[in-house]
Amino acid sequence: MQRYFVEKEQFENNIVRILGEDARHIGKVMRGRVGDEIIVCDGAGRVVLARLESVEAGEVAAMVIEEMTETSEARFRVEIAQSLPKGDKLETVIQKCTEIGAAAFVPFLSERTVVQYDAKKEEKRLQRWGKIAKEAAEQSHRSRVPEVRQPLPYKQLLKTFANYDLVLFCYEKEDGLQLRDVVRPFAESRLEGSASMLVVVGPEGGFAEREADEAAASGAKIAGLGRRILRAETAGMAALACILYESGEMGGNQ
Amino acid sequence: MQRYFVEKEQFENNIVRILGEDARHIGKVMRGRVGDEIIVCDGAGRVVLARLESVEAGEVAAMVIEEMTETSEARFRVEIAQSLPKGDKLETVIQKCTEIGAAAFVPFLSERTVVQYDAKKEEKRLQRWGKIAKEAAEQSHRSRVPEVRQPLPYKQLLKTFANYDLVLFCYEKEDGLQLRDVVRPFAESRLEGSASMLVVVGPEGGFAEREADEAAASGAKIAGLGRRILRAETAGMAALACILYESGEMGGNQ
Repeated sequence: MQRYFVEKEQFENNIVRILGEDARHIGKVMRGRVGDEIIVCDGAGRVVLARLESVEAGEVAAMVIEEMTETSEARFRVEIAQSLPKGDKLETVIQKCTEIGAAAFVPFLSERTVVQYDAKKEEKRLQRWGKIAKEAAEQSHRSRVPEVRQPLPYKQLLKTFANYDLVLFCYEKEDGLQLRDVVRPFAESRLEGSASMLVVVGPEGGFAEREADEAAASGAKIAGLGRRILRAETAGMAALACILYESGEMGGNQ
Repeated sequence: MQRYFVEKEQFENNIVRILGEDARHIGKVMRGRVGDEIIVCDGAGRVVLARLESVEAGEVAAMVIEEMTETSEARFRVEIAQSLPKGDKLETVIQKCTEIGAAAFVPFLSERTVVQYDAKKEEKRLQRWGKIAKEAAEQSHRSRVPEVRQPLPYKQLLKTFANYDLVLFCYEKEDGLQLRDVVRPFAESRLEGSASMLVVVGPEGGFAEREADEAAASGAKIAGLGRRILRAETAGMAALACILYESGEMGGNQ
């Protein structure tokens, strides 16, 4: 069934109003008619089954007929911190990692970040990134839209490490740990309940050794992703898939 | 160090000749000079360290100075069978899965495949897919270039299932198995040595139930990839990353 994310304020008692592009999507693309059912999410975890009450070009009204308790959110809240990659690669990261199950995105700037960062222009990009996250969340039947945060300088990113149960810093060190060495013991110590994790991925040129040392000093676990070199935009999705696999999102944990 | 894949025939005794685009890359992009070292792979597993002997616009000659025994190939040979997706999405699949470690690609046509398949035009696409695999293999420091095969009709794909130790058919069945339920026991039964696997991924509209039944009858294990719906081009890379994680490519298997 088609799924739409709306703002909390669009719910009023048991009526939800769907506006703008989403309303047009219901009317034009889905050819929705009064009586049809859709799923509406407030993006923060509330998911309802709703029946269309009126369908107009710019506004659709639907009545909540059932609060759905099912959730498609991952038990481990994994956020992806990605050093801003070139071109539109962050869009790929956001789209694919939202499907796989990321909880939020934290772009950041590190020593070898190549792209120029311009806070003024970024406002538009941030909006675009948010839109991509929303569309991917709808498409993959998520209950929440992962938040895309403002890009942070590296020093500030380090300060956030204390907020997570585990920070996994993707960096290849000779004779260093690999992903599974860190993730499996952690998942086995958390067989129930939630946990918060941050996966930190570098830019095209990788992290400077000093940056890895600073990350470790700030509490991160340094781990490699195997012998094949993953592109900057591939590392996060591969690590995320493996973490959620290990935490039981694809079977085996019951 | 920069890595180039050449045909076996380009090796003659201890001299390797690098031609065309790769030769231009060495001369113009890398500004290679006589005496510089590069890595050359024959795409079938031979990897050598070589020293440039002559650098011309269309041809570079290099002398083999060391046979390298290190390999970056995965212990499990995992091939990706993907129902032809729309647009250039198969290119994304080939690029990302080559980085992660796929052994080969088998495009195929199934009931809900949307794209029109035209064998004549496909010749060009097949060449392009091969080029993408080669470039991704160079970039990710692979020792082999994964082969991209001719697209197969579904019935023929089913007949190849008998050639693999495990065929994993990605399909969500109510109360069905999930990826880890199948992959973990298999990996635990194969803690050493190689194994051949095929991961089968459907088109945008998914597989028909009948197709899943036929796959099971042909020996495939049917497994889901969790509660979030992955796009056609995301499923293969997520499954592949998890399989190689489980088989010990990212630590934990020593």
